Amino acid sequence: MDNINISTISEVVKDLAQNHVKFSRMCHMRYGKEPLPQQSLVEELVDTCRAILFPGFFGNEEINAQNIEYSLGIACDRLSVVLEDQISAGLTIASGDPCGEMPEIQARARDLTARFISDMPKLRDLLFTDVDAIFLGDPAAATHQEVIYCYPAVKAISAHRIAHQLYGYGIPIIPRMISEIAHSETGIDIHPGAQISHHFAIDHGTGVVIGETAIIGHHVKLYQGVTLGARSFPTDENGNPIKGIDRHPIIGNNVVIYSNATILGRITIGDNAVVGGNVWVTQDVPPGARVVQAKTR
Amino acid sequence: MDNINISTISEVVKDLAQNHVKFSRMCHMRYGKEPLPQQSLVEELVDTCRAILFPGFFGNEEINAQNIEYSLGIACDRLSVVLEDQISAGLTIASGDPCGEMPEIQARARDLTARFISDMPKLRDLLFTDVDAIFLGDPAAATHQEVIYCYPAVKAISAHRIAHQLYGYGIPIIPRMISEIAHSETGIDIHPGAQISHHFAIDHGTGVVIGETAIIGHHVKLYQGVTLGARSFPTDENGNPIKGIDRHPIIGNNVVIYSNATILGRITIGDNAVVGGNVWVTQDVPPGARVVQAKTR
Amino acid sequence: MDNINISTISEVVKDLAQNHVKFSRMCHMRYGKEPLPQQSLVEELVDTCRAILFPGFFGNEEINAQNIEYSLGIACDRLSVVLEDQISAGLTIASGDPCGEMPEIQARARDLTARFISDMPKLRDLLFTDVDAIFLGDPAAATHQEVIYCYPAVKAISAHRIAHQLYGYGIPIIPRMISEIAHSETGIDIHPGAQISHHFAIDHGTGVVIGETAIIGHHVKLYQGVTLGARSFPTDENGNPIKGIDRHPIIGNNVVIYSNATILGRITIGDNAVVGGNVWVTQDVPPGARVVQAKTR
Amino acid sequence: MDNINISTISEVVKDLAQNHVKFSRMCHMRYGKEPLPQQSLVEELVDTCRAILFPGFFGNEEINAQNIEYSLGIACDRLSVVLEDQISAGLTIASGDPCGEMPEIQARARDLTARFISDMPKLRDLLFTDVDAIFLGDPAAATHQEVIYCYPAVKAISAHRIAHQLYGYGIPIIPRMISEIAHSETGIDIHPGAQISHHFAIDHGTGVVIGETAIIGHHVKLYQGVTLGARSFPTDENGNPIKGIDRHPIIGNNVVIYSNATILGRITIGDNAVVGGNVWVTQDVPPGARVVQAKTR
Amino acid sequence: MDNINISTISEVVKDLAQNHVKFSRMCHMRYGKEPLPQQSLVEELVDTCRAILFPGFFGNEEINAQNIEYSLGIACDRLSVVLEDQISAGLTIASGDPCGEMPEIQARARDLTARFISDMPKLRDLLFTDVDAIFLGDPAAATHQEVIYCYPAVKAISAHRIAHQLYGYGIPIIPRMISEIAHSETGIDIHPGAQISHHFAIDHGTGVVIGETAIIGHHVKLYQGVTLGARSFPTDENGNPIKGIDRHPIIGNNVVIYSNATILGRITIGDNAVVGGNVWVTQDVPPGARVVQAKTR
Amino acid sequence: MDNINISTISEVVKDLAQNHVKFSRMCHMRYGKEPLPQQSLVEELVDTCRAILFPGFFGNEEINAQNIEYSLGIACDRLSVVLEDQISAGLTIASGDPCGEMPEIQARARDLTARFISDMPKLRDLLFTDVDAIFLGDPAAATHQEVIYCYPAVKAISAHRIAHQLYGYGIPIIPRMISEIAHSETGIDIHPGAQISHHFAIDHGTGVVIGETAIIGHHVKLYQGVTLGARSFPTDENGNPIKGIDRHPIIGNNVVIYSNATILGRITIGDNAVVGGNVWVTQDVPPGARVVQAKTR
Repeated sequence: MDNINISTISEVVKDLAQNHVKFSRMCHMRYGKEPLPQQSLVEELVDTCRAILFPGFFGNEEINAQNIEYSLGIACDRLSVVLEDQISAGLTIASGDPCGEMPEIQARARDLTARFISDMPKLRDLLFTDVDAIFLGDPAAATHQEVIYCYPAVKAISAHRIAHQLYGYGIPIIPRMISEIAHSETGIDIHPGAQISHHFAIDHGTGVVIGETAIIGHHVKLYQGVTLGARSFPTDENGNPIKGIDRHPIIGNNVVIYSNATILGRITIGDNAVVGGNVWVTQDVPPGARVVQAKTR
Repeated sequence: MDNINISTISEVVKDLAQNHVKFSRMCHMRYGKEPLPQQSLVEELVDTCRAILFPGFFGNEEINAQNIEYSLGIACDRLSVVLEDQISAGLTIASGDPCGEMPEIQARARDLTARFISDMPKLRDLLFTDVDAIFLGDPAAATHQEVIYCYPAVKAISAHRIAHQLYGYGIPIIPRMISEIAHSETGIDIHPGAQISHHFAIDHGTGVVIGETAIIGHHVKLYQGVTLGARSFPTDENGNPIKGIDRHPIIGNNVVIYSNATILGRITIGDNAVVGGNVWVTQDVPPGARVVQAKTR
Repeated sequence: MDNINISTISEVVKDLAQNHVKFSRMCHMRYGKEPLPQQSLVEELVDTCRAILFPGFFGNEEINAQNIEYSLGIACDRLSVVLEDQISAGLTIASGDPCGEMPEIQARARDLTARFISDMPKLRDLLFTDVDAIFLGDPAAATHQEVIYCYPAVKAISAHRIAHQLYGYGIPIIPRMISEIAHSETGIDIHPGAQISHHFAIDHGTGVVIGETAIIGHHVKLYQGVTLGARSFPTDENGNPIKGIDRHPIIGNNVVIYSNATILGRITIGDNAVVGGNVWVTQDVPPGARVVQAKTR
Repeated sequence: MDNINISTISEVVKDLAQNHVKFSRMCHMRYGKEPLPQQSLVEELVDTCRAILFPGFFGNEEINAQNIEYSLGIACDRLSVVLEDQISAGLTIASGDPCGEMPEIQARARDLTARFISDMPKLRDLLFTDVDAIFLGDPAAATHQEVIYCYPAVKAISAHRIAHQLYGYGIPIIPRMISEIAHSETGIDIHPGAQISHHFAIDHGTGVVIGETAIIGHHVKLYQGVTLGARSFPTDENGNPIKGIDRHPIIGNNVVIYSNATILGRITIGDNAVVGGNVWVTQDVPPGARVVQAKTR
Repeated sequence: MDNINISTISEVVKDLAQNHVKFSRMCHMRYGKEPLPQQSLVEELVDTCRAILFPGFFGNEEINAQNIEYSLGIACDRLSVVLEDQISAGLTIASGDPCGEMPEIQARARDLTARFISDMPKLRDLLFTDVDAIFLGDPAAATHQEVIYCYPAVKAISAHRIAHQLYGYGIPIIPRMISEIAHSETGIDIHPGAQISHHFAIDHGTGVVIGETAIIGHHVKLYQGVTLGARSFPTDENGNPIKGIDRHPIIGNNVVIYSNATILGRITIGDNAVVGGNVWVTQDVPPGARVVQAKTR
Repeated sequence: MDNINISTISEVVKDLAQNHVKFSRMCHMRYGKEPLPQQSLVEELVDTCRAILFPGFFGNEEINAQNIEYSLGIACDRLSVVLEDQISAGLTIASGDPCGEMPEIQARARDLTARFISDMPKLRDLLFTDVDAIFLGDPAAATHQEVIYCYPAVKAISAHRIAHQLYGYGIPIIPRMISEIAHSETGIDIHPGAQISHHFAIDHGTGVVIGETAIIGHHVKLYQGVTLGARSFPTDENGNPIKGIDRHPIIGNNVVIYSNATILGRITIGDNAVVGGNVWVTQDVPPGARVVQAKTR
């Protein structure tokens, strides 16, 4: 007999399939036909948005004058289906009642989907400022086209601006799934809650972390490995972290932060400041200041 | 004639196909029907394990009470086939005789596969402590579900616990292939040999490196960019590194290590210690101590 | 009615499809049948090269003595088609006239493709020195086979050596797309312009950045998070960065650079120097020197 | 300009997309989210049923004792989803109100699906009699296994028995879509309404046609090209055919009908009769009789 | 050694790859980049046309008011690419000079493609008469929808009307490839040259053959197995058949031909005639006549 | 609760999974790792053979002088793997001991595979005579190329010549699976046992049936719907048909048989005879004779 002992497998399967309390948090199960967040659909959602925002660079690579309107139309139609479904999934989970009546949730999901799609042109305009900032900030970039094709920041920032918009609607989980997709692609981890102004640039980017309550001005540029994190966070009487407290830095306009700098806590980096690489900053930095690492030995 | 000169291609092909000594190390060739490590199957192995350990989050996204037992059964059955094959491949390579008799290897692979599958429930329980630790340690995490979906640490630690178990069976290469899959997904690079206790958390994670002989206590939390590495390693008379020497740190219980800290060598970080970001540590840190970077200028 | 209001979608589509000045840089559109850089084809190009350079490890996993010549032949044939197409795409964009006559571009693309394929055996020999250097430099590596399968450096350096060769031919964009594919896979970001000698090793690698004008000697080893970057760059009268200035470090032979070190500007790290982890270096380091971080508090 | 004139395409598209009366019958359009009959899902339904009825021959080809229960479980679960959806689609169309309230339809679809699945074991037993009859009736068949693998009659009759059961529930369209799938695969066209007893055999089968109101006894064998058709049918005052009249033959038990025989109208072929090849029969044939073609010249 | 002797395969491959005279007709080889007829693209062409002519029934099954224009637009755009390519392929072969200059062929292909697409609405209208005729002629058909989904005649006649249009443009091979695709799907074999008027119906259809020079009036209905073939054909002095002679029947208006009737030669079946099943007709049949088989014994 | 009652499915699954005597014939189950006939692999086998015999027409459509040898090499290599596996499967079944020792079966399968591949050039030469005969026999065929692309007879006869060769080696089931694949594609059903000489042509072909012990001379042409069948067959004392008796017609050289003719029993149709359409022949036909149907009424 070449197979694993049959009873081994059936015992393990029975054990794993048991629905006890602890296991229930590890298992993502449908009770009826309610929508659930689905990794594969959220990935499609991100791909579809990028195909709409940067036609020909992402998605259908054969765009021309003859087919661009149809191609965008199909993409928007598909986006409307997938997004409504995943928004419903997020709202359902937040409702705490996966099996309850859902007509209100569906109506709200439809409204939010329409709102999101209506805002796509504005999103594209905002992303163009980011592409422009990256292009102007890097002598190695020959064309805007090269920036869109070859800079991971474009993937990371486009995902962030999509996720941030959905986060603003109060939809749980889905925005974080989006940001994690970009994190896995690029090594750049931006929490959907972070508020980032126009002309935002990241170079290289691997290891960048931007926390939930960070606020970033316009014309800011980050290099790889920069952390805008929390220093510590208060816990409640049970020792659990208190959610929703402002705990990440505020970065002014025209700031440059070099590679592997770590900036922690609700501090402010003033306009036009420059933060050197590999530093650990936990105090305010005044406007126009320059912070660098202690001398090496 | 539109094609590259035919003789160019055929000369290059002949050159590349020649089986000289140097090339043999660059070419992974079957001699008969012996199994070989296969990247695509090891990826399937990881995906299948995650689908078993976190039903509905990974793999088949349509889990419900009606199909969960069948779905887990199919996944375990497929796991038994793929795992036995890849364990055989690893053992065959270690045997140094790819064309020899293999019944013993096959029998051992079958036994180890059964053992691995039997331990899946324990593996799930251990992973739950990690999910719980991540949830409790991050104010940005709203639910356990969000942790499993959105935290790369879950992918990295699940892959590590799978790989570590196979590493413990003495199977070569396959565990490293597994850890590298997670590294590529998450930027978190944990050697399969590392011994990691329960309630292990990593936040963000990009750039984390944990070496082969590292030992990590329970309730440890690492941030992005942390290295638990070797400082240097002795070489033999031929200048080749001596394999298998303990050369990575020992981390106590309840330790927190902040982003981009580099901890090198067989040193000990005592229980309850805190290591600040961007530091370079090559000496023991006593229990309860707090290490931070020199002041910036 | 269950669908998003039809006029919403059609208005958004019309807005996005309008071909105004700003949008034209965000949209990658064919005018006729000229080739365009295509992400999916560049990915195939990288996969095919790796399958040729490391048969059995990448691509067709069932290589044996019976089929190796045919398998390499098919891969080289496919490479010749895809590469010629993407070289044409790069040259077309550089020509500034996407709709012009293209016979000269096609002829040049064909020549460069033949030249690239002719050099594959040399590329393989060079890559072997890298594999060997990685193997010898890591006590955790049991075999050359493990190195090729499990070390992201092999993916990153193979992509770099491919991209660097195409960069040397003066082809725009395509080399950068190749380097970005490897960056996404491995977290290692090497600009195609960087000149890297034989026996080059990177360990772990996440967060490594090597700039366009960097020059690296033989037997150099980098750890994760190392940046070889530019310190600053002159701008022209319009505030735009001046392209093409030497602005990245020169690394001598036999140099080791530990994790998260940041080395910036056109400085020289002398032969046999050692740069410790987490340091910020903006001045020359003499041959044989050792640089480490300031003491922690 | 290499593309078809843009206005040509957009004019044609506008013309085709106009929703005038005639066109509405040629276009199968959703109004909301109601289910529609879908060719691809009906094909999956047939494949899934065959995988359940003949495990290992159709569908998952790797059945063994370890996985058979899980494999059948997954197939039945998938069948329950697809079948409920397509039954709803059929009932919705029949209701004449695609946008109306559907809870009753959904409830009925769920009941009918459960009923269908409950009857799968009986269906399998009945199909076994057909396999057995084919095996016993053909000296060229070496094993039952060969019959299931190689005889198109098995595909045709299994599809018929599935379709006939659904037809019996009063579900429109879906049963006919099933029979047409088998027709396309095998050249055997059996209307779902035909009543066929056990031990039914068809040899070769191309061109066989069995009409909606045909009744066939047990142990009947047909050869290729046999038609059991209608002779003519009455029309109503508008010249439209009157639906639902018995108009096809009744075939007794133990009848053999040779290739290309055409039997038309509500006539009866008595038990144990033999109908020779290439004949045209429009009158009753008594039990035990033998009918053959007129002599050739 | 488990593999077939290497020299066996390499000898066979060399033999098969030799380009001698006889073999050249069996091998369909590119000399440069000229287009060649491609089975897979012709299949896509048929599928795309059907998706345009019967939206929602074939191709994208999720048609609704929001996406229909975009969906048809994308389909027409894709059709324009594939059709132009395959028309070029057909014309190139007919030119007898696969390596010659092709701008004229490409221009002609583009014109014919535009012409074909312009005529799609007329094609749809014509096909609607066929659907209507099938519906009215079969008491078993409940709705037009059922006819489009479930009657192989719809597949066969739609393919024919597409192929016939291309045949009318003088394009070689491609129309025949189209008709053979429908033949394989349905068992109905209509030569693209056949001229068929509106309101054409076929019931069941398996085995129907309609020859190249057949002419069929309006409101004609055929049953399965009907042949409209050639009786014999004159040969030239070398014994080769002379191409292009009218050699198939002319069928009048309102004719019904029952199953397996064989009608051969350039004869005329008069208006309103009825031809019974299984007859062999090689002489004219006058208008209104009724032909049936000799009595059985 | 939206799902079918869970106990319904689990009861049905248990019933179906029970391994009782009757069910064992309906289930195709592995006991260990022995090979089993697999529909998907046999389909691949047929596709691969056709790609080898008609390069560029089937399989890889991009054949040119640069890649033809590699493309044929890869196809032959793949064929050697799939064929050896399926030959083993056939022989294992015939051995009656699926779990026994298999080294002899594997050795035999390897020998037969090598033999089959060695004979591919002869098979190609033989098939060329068939292509030539079809071309010369049909005024509608413009080129050999059109014949290979568009005549189902090429698919049917190529599958037959492949299957007949394997049948000649005594391999069970696999040859029949091959012939059934062609039957489903073309409506032409040729038993692998039939002996067919060179220059064999079938026109249209739907409904053709050629039995196991039929013998067909050279330059024979059949039209659609022709049956070369058995008249009746003796049964043994249990009423089971006696296997292996010569029971199908012998067709001489240069014979033409028109559409829907049915020729039954071990009779001989003499050289140069012509059999008209729709006739039923159960007696010898002398050389040069012409048989036609009785007059119609």
